[in-house]
Amino acid sequence: MPVIPESHLDLLTRPLFAHLATVRPDGMPQSNPMWVRWDGELLWFTTTTTRRKFRNLSGEPRVAVSINDPEQPYRYLELRGTVERIEPDPRCHLFTELADRYGRELGGALPGDAPHRIAVAVRPVRVTFQ
Amino acid sequence: MPVIPESHLDLLTRPLFAHLATVRPDGMPQSNPMWVRWDGELLWFTTTTTRRKFRNLSGEPRVAVSINDPEQPYRYLELRGTVERIEPDPRCHLFTELADRYGRELGGALPGDAPHRIAVAVRPVRVTFQ
Repeated sequence: MPVIPESHLDLLTRPLFAHLATVRPDGMPQSNPMWVRWDGELLWFTTTTTRRKFRNLSGEPRVAVSINDPEQPYRYLELRGTVERIEPDPRCHLFTELADRYGRELGGALPGDAPHRIAVAVRPVRVTFQ
Repeated sequence: MPVIPESHLDLLTRPLFAHLATVRPDGMPQSNPMWVRWDGELLWFTTTTTRRKFRNLSGEPRVAVSINDPEQPYRYLELRGTVERIEPDPRCHLFTELADRYGRELGGALPGDAPHRIAVAVRPVRVTFQ
């Protein structure tokens, strides 16, 4: 399993947006800015089962992610990997944790799409960085 | 042809990194931070014929791009489109223009990969934004 280099780990632990590339059923790619959580082994995203990107990764579980440092934009990290876990998250545990970390005010309410919330974990198989 | 909304045009004209999703020959996606130039109709990238992303888009010319605003990260723009033009750029006209715009010092020298430089233009077919 590839190791995230110590020098670039901050790109996963600071509240930076990761750009998630998925492949649509017709073979066309899609790119979405996402909140992420790195647990030391897997990269977690929150989404819902009603979104296109969920349909994409249900058909093609291989994804790619790139993150660059807004303060030093030539520092970046790219991961390619495979979706390893998809867990229902109707209580929005991951969503709430990420909203808090990324500074989005929820005002104590769960989002309207809570029943469809899922937590998706990607295991990196290839890491590149600069 | 989709129109870039006036409200989000700055995301293409400020020197922000765009995350380019391409699809590899084996169907796996790839994501790379890129410099871009928007000419009002086409989105231009500089790359080389020796890079993986060139091989990817030679096989699958459909790509996706996402750009978010580092100062207001919930503002973002996503484009999906098709590579319409690939032009040799051994004199590095586009590369030099982008290097200048993105504040990279070239010190008057062309990069070592100049003979392989190309300018790639993508025509958006779908635009989403928030």
